[in-house]
Amino acid sequence: MNDISGSNERSGNGDLTSEGRRKSCWYEEEIEQDLRWCYALNSILHTGASQYQDIALLDTRPFGKALVIDGKLQSAEMDEFIYHESLVHPALLHHPNPKTIFIMGGGEGSTAREILRHKNVDKVVMCDIDEQVVDFCKSYLVANREAFCDTRLHITINDARAELERREECFDVIIGDLADPIEGGPCYQLYTKSFYESTVKPRLNEGGIFVTQAGPAGVFSHTEVFSCIYNTLRQVFKYVVPYSAHIPSYADTWGWVMASDSPFKADTEELDARIKQRIKGENRYLDGKTFASASILSKAVRKSLDKETQVYTEGTARFIYGHGTAHKLNHAHA
Amino acid sequence: MNDISGSNERSGNGDLTSEGRRKSCWYEEEIEQDLRWCYALNSILHTGASQYQDIALLDTRPFGKALVIDGKLQSAEMDEFIYHESLVHPALLHHPNPKTIFIMGGGEGSTAREILRHKNVDKVVMCDIDEQVVDFCKSYLVANREAFCDTRLHITINDARAELERREECFDVIIGDLADPIEGGPCYQLYTKSFYESTVKPRLNEGGIFVTQAGPAGVFSHTEVFSCIYNTLRQVFKYVVPYSAHIPSYADTWGWVMASDSPFKADTEELDARIKQRIKGENRYLDGKTFASASILSKAVRKSLDKETQVYTEGTARFIYGHGTAHKLNHAHA
Amino acid sequence: MNDISGSNERSGNGDLTSEGRRKSCWYEEEIEQDLRWCYALNSILHTGASQYQDIALLDTRPFGKALVIDGKLQSAEMDEFIYHESLVHPALLHHPNPKTIFIMGGGEGSTAREILRHKNVDKVVMCDIDEQVVDFCKSYLVANREAFCDTRLHITINDARAELERREECFDVIIGDLADPIEGGPCYQLYTKSFYESTVKPRLNEGGIFVTQAGPAGVFSHTEVFSCIYNTLRQVFKYVVPYSAHIPSYADTWGWVMASDSPFKADTEELDARIKQRIKGENRYLDGKTFASASILSKAVRKSLDKETQVYTEGTARFIYGHGTAHKLNHAHA
Amino acid sequence: MNDISGSNERSGNGDLTSEGRRKSCWYEEEIEQDLRWCYALNSILHTGASQYQDIALLDTRPFGKALVIDGKLQSAEMDEFIYHESLVHPALLHHPNPKTIFIMGGGEGSTAREILRHKNVDKVVMCDIDEQVVDFCKSYLVANREAFCDTRLHITINDARAELERREECFDVIIGDLADPIEGGPCYQLYTKSFYESTVKPRLNEGGIFVTQAGPAGVFSHTEVFSCIYNTLRQVFKYVVPYSAHIPSYADTWGWVMASDSPFKADTEELDARIKQRIKGENRYLDGKTFASASILSKAVRKSLDKETQVYTEGTARFIYGHGTAHKLNHAHA
Repeated sequence: MNDISGSNERSGNGDLTSEGRRKSCWYEEEIEQDLRWCYALNSILHTGASQYQDIALLDTRPFGKALVIDGKLQSAEMDEFIYHESLVHPALLHHPNPKTIFIMGGGEGSTAREILRHKNVDKVVMCDIDEQVVDFCKSYLVANREAFCDTRLHITINDARAELERREECFDVIIGDLADPIEGGPCYQLYTKSFYESTVKPRLNEGGIFVTQAGPAGVFSHTEVFSCIYNTLRQVFKYVVPYSAHIPSYADTWGWVMASDSPFKADTEELDARIKQRIKGENRYLDGKTFASASILSKAVRKSLDKETQVYTEGTARFIYGHGTAHKLNHAHA
Repeated sequence: MNDISGSNERSGNGDLTSEGRRKSCWYEEEIEQDLRWCYALNSILHTGASQYQDIALLDTRPFGKALVIDGKLQSAEMDEFIYHESLVHPALLHHPNPKTIFIMGGGEGSTAREILRHKNVDKVVMCDIDEQVVDFCKSYLVANREAFCDTRLHITINDARAELERREECFDVIIGDLADPIEGGPCYQLYTKSFYESTVKPRLNEGGIFVTQAGPAGVFSHTEVFSCIYNTLRQVFKYVVPYSAHIPSYADTWGWVMASDSPFKADTEELDARIKQRIKGENRYLDGKTFASASILSKAVRKSLDKETQVYTEGTARFIYGHGTAHKLNHAHA
Repeated sequence: MNDISGSNERSGNGDLTSEGRRKSCWYEEEIEQDLRWCYALNSILHTGASQYQDIALLDTRPFGKALVIDGKLQSAEMDEFIYHESLVHPALLHHPNPKTIFIMGGGEGSTAREILRHKNVDKVVMCDIDEQVVDFCKSYLVANREAFCDTRLHITINDARAELERREECFDVIIGDLADPIEGGPCYQLYTKSFYESTVKPRLNEGGIFVTQAGPAGVFSHTEVFSCIYNTLRQVFKYVVPYSAHIPSYADTWGWVMASDSPFKADTEELDARIKQRIKGENRYLDGKTFASASILSKAVRKSLDKETQVYTEGTARFIYGHGTAHKLNHAHA
Repeated sequence: MNDISGSNERSGNGDLTSEGRRKSCWYEEEIEQDLRWCYALNSILHTGASQYQDIALLDTRPFGKALVIDGKLQSAEMDEFIYHESLVHPALLHHPNPKTIFIMGGGEGSTAREILRHKNVDKVVMCDIDEQVVDFCKSYLVANREAFCDTRLHITINDARAELERREECFDVIIGDLADPIEGGPCYQLYTKSFYESTVKPRLNEGGIFVTQAGPAGVFSHTEVFSCIYNTLRQVFKYVVPYSAHIPSYADTWGWVMASDSPFKADTEELDARIKQRIKGENRYLDGKTFASASILSKAVRKSLDKETQVYTEGTARFIYGHGTAHKLNHAHA
């Protein structure tokens, strides 16, 4: 049929047929002001808006379903496991027996999901400020449905600081799954020295561990907030471990910082043994060796972290481009 | 609330809040290989595929709902009236009493809709080769629902040439609402001298008029196919009128050519009078003066058309970038 | 050689070889906030900055060399003739014998170049506020070199209003080649009723004509400033003629308005005769018929202009997206 | 001055002033068919073309000067040190006393530059097939000027296989700095088992080490060619070490594979000691710990490499999107 040959003809002129056809619809993110990252789109599945932010669930070609808040990718189906396994498991595995966990932010539900895979965990409190985001994710993120229904999970809609101060109980692990600290941004107070000292530490049980997502940690991007979060935490805790992993959909290496007043003693083998004992199902990304690699930073980043002198206090904060209000969708602080 | 000030803060760093927020999702079309036209997207409403082509209905910010076939915009809610009023009304208005109309292609339904606004029209035959496109448009293009239900409309799924040859009746007006003529493309045979002579002309009643969309007609782009379609028609018909109009969503001026063996006698006032008499509802774009302006081409285009020597025959055809298989979604010829 | 077959192999996977190779470097302009227009780039020829604005000369694939000010295309080699012939010739041709011309803005030099093609013109005053732009264009715009050297051209660096008020002489034609009127923008005072009444009109000789570029004039975009410039001028002058033309590199139809207290009497033939008599060389775009077509607006635009009630006064102004400071590069007013 | 306030005004409408101004010129790379990576451009410094490929030197905002071959980024000023330190130093440092080095490809000169920093190196043979690329880089890549002048460097323009077969001498280290292996591409024969066995291994001195760039090594992208290069090398050499690092300008983690018939014995401290002894100047990226981290792959990649069964032979090859002809600019094989 001529139609077919006609179509083929076109491929010589810049368009490709069938599989190879040029994509027409794109999601575009400004990683920085002069750097863009664009995914071909299959569809825009759902959009919504809360009091605080715009929410969208996109179906992207390279990374599957992607949750986007205020024009910033929060997590993509295909590789969110890297972020969430890295955020949750190192702290829970290094703890001898974590039973109670508090999540600051985390409204997406994926952090809770990873925590709930730990058989020894009895109670998870997830405190996010944005109810609509929580509801949106409950409705649309199929991968987290089971977690949202787990009776060990207690969701509370509140500012994380207010909630921690209000509660009388302590936790074995506190996890910060919040937007990056931007001066004037909604979350930056949740990264300050005084917050860690006066609010977080008093709410950790003996031997408790605090871990927080810590923004981009690439060879250049780690100076945005990672080095400063690290330096702030080492003012407050005796043992502080920064680590990082490349997340394809973020087009960058990402960082986390784990902190405690008790030493982190589990080695590679011990971590693998605890994974086997404690975690239901199999991790896709994190095991003992992965953590060993992740916690050895490259020379460039290591030197820069060593030399970092800035500390987040109420009066200081660094900017991370665009990830402002949003980077992790959880706005736990008003 | 801090969230708000946080949001505002961001706007100083490249992002804009609320209304002014940077758009994340875009539809992108390659007008030419080195020229792109991009609309911000609200959503991707429907997608589908036929035996011949991919179909999508997008909700775009600048132009409303947009029908896209094989990665090429077919028509956009906000300005398709310019294309369809220009294609249909000049021919029907110049004809003294058009009762029967044949549409080659036109599966979108908008051409039929404009024809059916003429009270004197008794019968419209729309012949499109792609049933799925017709069904898609029937289902999703709300503006054409009424037209699709009009009992005067007869839809037939066939190659336009085969259909015209098969039928014994003649028509007052025959309208070509087809993809542009591309060598090897599905429609180029429907623009050849022999097709016009042997198939179209014999199916026109005495005083009948043929009109066809004729591709881009901009100062530069008119040489792609417009001048050649014009020149081909003037080999076959005594009176040939090329005209054009700028269509914002196409990012170009578009062309049509009207042809007959009877002279086109209606002047501006007569056209306006006939519009009042014959057409239900009010035209948004076309009236006597609009047509007067549209049918006076600029010096650059006029000279170029005068000098055109190429004629579409089975063995020749010109290329129009990308608009290949698709430009008007109707593939009336296999 | 394998290299070749290797290259061919790739073309099946999305890249095209040689001529058809995918372009890597692009110029991107936001026509509106949700509409982008992108040209493939060959090179970035020159960049500069003045006290007022950033200047760049790009070599684009679709439109040749392009002058860009503050991220907005000013004029492109391939089609600037449409803008400049349309701005200059209708006014000069309708005037019985234009000898002295004043250009508000026009630092690019192309407006002067078209004026200087008129043999009867004795003196052209070009008043632009930005010396660096004038110098940049003098250096790099080869097409205007001869014009910049013409002894009839007098360049003065000043605010156009101040200059017109300072001067005692009158002119046969005054031409506004300025950025669009944006509230708070640098040029909007040069589009107000009081400016036209108190500054422009007193500087026109008997029978003098004023003409100004008037922003986008598309079916939708004409409401941004075109209709209001038209309506403001008809408060001040007895005879006002709006006209428009599609300019491919602008991705829109553009508008101009010509105004006088003497009637515009030259018809199509008379215009053609005067072109022959008065203009050196041949116009590429404008002749009698082109102007006839350009000055008959489509129904949609005509109705909208008729109904326009807004008048630019010091206290009002309409917004035209992005073309703010810049659209025509000439900032004749501080 | 109004101009200034005018400019500020605009920033509320989508454009940003001065520093924050929206960028107009972009370099765009298709990482994959549905994934784009775009840098704002300051300028296009030089362009050229060889018999094999197009060459450009761009000045990008996020990554400085960038060498682009056939539309694919080869290396960017700001982070090419990660790629080149990772390619060169692990092999040279693990070797007890590397004196003679052969580079397959490497026309850019950066690989040679890193090798020449080793004081014990006596002779470097760089064999690239594309003389124009070598000349272009010699002329324009300032960072490599000194290296190109080093008398220890011997540049030869030839196919790497032909050159290795022609020579009678052996080398302490052979380095593959070639485009990725794509079926039908120019370099894929330089990644086959038979090439390693019959051409590379016989040209290594006792204790010699072979190392090659090995394509993307991200959590998903490592299956394109990295795992297969690794698996092919372990068919041929007794000791094979895959390692990786995130390279910001590539928007991905990149991989290298080091192979030898002698064990790799240097530990972290030994590597650091050798760096101090042997290397002139200071590494920015690579030290003992960096290599320790780089050579522990994440669980996901490790498992996938273990299970890899494919071996590159003359008859097999995997595709890596777009990086086809080009990824490393050196086309050492015809």
